[in-house]
Amino acid sequence: MQRYFVNATPADEVTLPPEAAHHLLKVMRAEVGTTVELVLADHCVYLATLSATEPTATLKINQKLDADSELPVSVTLACGLPKTKEKPELIVQKATELGADKIVFFDAARSISHWQGNKQKRKIERLQKIAESAAEQSHRNKIPQVEYSANLDQLLANYPATERIVAWEESAKQGETSALAQQFNALKPGDSILAVFGPEGGLSENEIAKMNEAGVVAAGLGPRILRTETAPLYFMAAISYAMELS
Amino acid sequence: MQRYFVNATPADEVTLPPEAAHHLLKVMRAEVGTTVELVLADHCVYLATLSATEPTATLKINQKLDADSELPVSVTLACGLPKTKEKPELIVQKATELGADKIVFFDAARSISHWQGNKQKRKIERLQKIAESAAEQSHRNKIPQVEYSANLDQLLANYPATERIVAWEESAKQGETSALAQQFNALKPGDSILAVFGPEGGLSENEIAKMNEAGVVAAGLGPRILRTETAPLYFMAAISYAMELS
Repeated sequence: MQRYFVNATPADEVTLPPEAAHHLLKVMRAEVGTTVELVLADHCVYLATLSATEPTATLKINQKLDADSELPVSVTLACGLPKTKEKPELIVQKATELGADKIVFFDAARSISHWQGNKQKRKIERLQKIAESAAEQSHRNKIPQVEYSANLDQLLANYPATERIVAWEESAKQGETSALAQQFNALKPGDSILAVFGPEGGLSENEIAKMNEAGVVAAGLGPRILRTETAPLYFMAAISYAMELS
Repeated sequence: MQRYFVNATPADEVTLPPEAAHHLLKVMRAEVGTTVELVLADHCVYLATLSATEPTATLKINQKLDADSELPVSVTLACGLPKTKEKPELIVQKATELGADKIVFFDAARSISHWQGNKQKRKIERLQKIAESAAEQSHRNKIPQVEYSANLDQLLANYPATERIVAWEESAKQGETSALAQQFNALKPGDSILAVFGPEGGLSENEIAKMNEAGVVAAGLGPRILRTETAPLYFMAAISYAMELS
């Protein structure tokens, strides 16, 4: 069933925001009586019926559903800004499907792209729309927030978490295979975890030293070398498997 | 370090195939004395030095490395043929990085695209090249095989495995959360697993019934709805985490 996010408190009737209204009425060609799922500001899912199409899509709330597809822990992915336009889009779409709570792009020492001023605003707005649409499709209860940090210092200062890890290739090369599972095993429902990933050229020694000093734990993601956009998706699937399926 | 696959038995000297030679000499602009890694037909990694550039790239083998980045079990992914050109390419690239051994696209009941005759040949050749390049980049010991099956019956007949599972959305909806881990826990090194995924519209009831009859186990991949190209990548990361990191 079609799902829309509406930033409204639960009430008898809810009006869809313009883009969702356009999608429901023009793309899906819904008529009065059509039933959809709405996620309101309380992150709960409600069954609702289209009650009016003019002047805009208005829906009558029928019942609250017992539907929660969120991970038991809050995951923030921090990705060194990749070179291409496509990689951040792929990361945001897939990480949303896989349950991330926040996706932060940070300008890493070896990032070749830099997002400043208006460009940064435009990029984040576009990625936020991708997150919203992926959250609807994957039936999330939350839309992940997409954010930007100017460098690693800012990232470490602004994103505290119960646990913080960095996916480090050298860690995997040295045959380290237990740090990730140790971190996952120590997490309790309601905890938060920050996972940091380098850009294409990897993290610099200075960045690794800073994270080491800040208590961020280095963890390998297995023996194969993963591309910058693949590593965060591996992490998301692994944490889902560890926390939801095993 | 740059890695190339060469289908040759170990010898003192090895000649690179034309595309790898072009890459090493023209793209990387390597000169005599440059060291690279070669994976030979025995799936082992050798350190080799460029000894001649004319008439083509010839390398002298220096030593065999103790480098094995393969999963302890052989994974075959069987994906219902997706609608777009991009999705099979994304699946092959990422599944290669994540350690798959074979990637089979099959014409599922609800597949909208169909690959026949020359188109099938062209598609598979292109995907095989993507697999080779991803295998080089991710430092695999094997290039996964990309194959095609005309339908589910052919798939089930041609791909026996120690265990066979199907990622089934309904299984997840019914709150099933233990089948995947049970299957992983039962695998021993050297075993094989086939994992079947539906196309965009999902698998048909008839296909699910056929698999049920053939002993293929239905397993959920968590509470969120994953796109057709995301589900196999979730599976690959989960099996890597389960078998290599926990």
